Amino acid sequence: MIPVITAFESSPDRGQGLARDMRVRWALEEVGQPYEVRLVSFQSMKEPAHRARNPFGQILTYEEGDLVLFESGAIVLHIAERHAGLLPNDANARSRAIAWMFAALNTVEPPILDLAVAKFLEGDKPWTAERLELIKERICKRLHDLSVRLGDADWLDGAFSAGDLMMVHALQRLKPSGLLGEYPNLAEYVAHAEERPAFKRAFAAQLAVFAASESG
Amino acid sequence: MIPVITAFESSPDRGQGLARDMRVRWALEEVGQPYEVRLVSFQSMKEPAHRARNPFGQILTYEEGDLVLFESGAIVLHIAERHAGLLPNDANARSRAIAWMFAALNTVEPPILDLAVAKFLEGDKPWTAERLELIKERICKRLHDLSVRLGDADWLDGAFSAGDLMMVHALQRLKPSGLLGEYPNLAEYVAHAEERPAFKRAFAAQLAVFAASESG
Repeated sequence: MIPVITAFESSPDRGQGLARDMRVRWALEEVGQPYEVRLVSFQSMKEPAHRARNPFGQILTYEEGDLVLFESGAIVLHIAERHAGLLPNDANARSRAIAWMFAALNTVEPPILDLAVAKFLEGDKPWTAERLELIKERICKRLHDLSVRLGDADWLDGAFSAGDLMMVHALQRLKPSGLLGEYPNLAEYVAHAEERPAFKRAFAAQLAVFAASESG
Repeated sequence: MIPVITAFESSPDRGQGLARDMRVRWALEEVGQPYEVRLVSFQSMKEPAHRARNPFGQILTYEEGDLVLFESGAIVLHIAERHAGLLPNDANARSRAIAWMFAALNTVEPPILDLAVAKFLEGDKPWTAERLELIKERICKRLHDLSVRLGDADWLDGAFSAGDLMMVHALQRLKPSGLLGEYPNLAEYVAHAEERPAFKRAFAAQLAVFAASESG
């Protein structure tokens, strides 16, 4: 059964791979599961057909036979549970890898997304410059703790897992800010993940959509 | 094996039950698993012994034999996977219930927490009043979509699940804002969950810690 995911028909970040379909593409590539993509526009993702699959009108959906899922964390976990390669076999190690998925999504990513909100939704406000500094402090608090925990390990807990996949994708959004460079082991962690063949295939696949929409 | 969780020795919300230990207490009560609590202060949660369990120095940890977990979502999911009562048996329904956990934590809760950040961390700033309105708009966008999806159902997808538990706990933080009252089916959804005996036992347990710290 070939799953179908959704992705933007025209990349909002000009092919940088920051949209959440990248997480699902990467997970599917890691486990060797082929997939199909339904392209969606900013308009059509607000329409009933898409909202039936994603009640919040966000970009990401996943269909596999009768199953319809939304939320990048839930989709990546579903893939990781049904295929080898993204979660350890040991039960405790598996729970810990899943804890890193939640940490990526709930503890590390929120201040990083706040930075995007402050720039893109409130960029014209008089408070933006001062607030950006506050948000950067909150981000650095998380990065510091993450950097200490990672130490000189390759991955967060043993072998590469779905937890690393989610964490790396959350951190990638920081590249333009320069904040990642203040934590050399985190910058290296992200670079190391980007060398994975599955990441490269997923990145190329999302970039191809952008290139096609540009040339069309 | 009796798990050990951590909780604040002195309730930061005067016993309203908004701290994240409430999610874990509630999940453990739903599945009938006894537990022990190690009380932690704002100071001691930043120290190495606690950080070894929670790398970000946040309140919540869960220990069960050799296993140490952090992140409320990961802990509730771990409990739900090892006991009956919080996830459906059907594999697809199970994945959908987990999707609601992620939706609660990543789509609905972030703007709700932004409201707390704006009040408590930036309450003295000149921009606070104007920003609170922007944040309330973002919250209402999520509440609207959630309200439409819930409709007149009791729970988000069939029987009560870990997805409802996480969603209800995220929504409870909105009570003082009055926003929940604009969506009567959501207010009813929260009230209905609060009638569950497991919720009441968990709420009483966290309140007892606060009462003890007040009288001591």
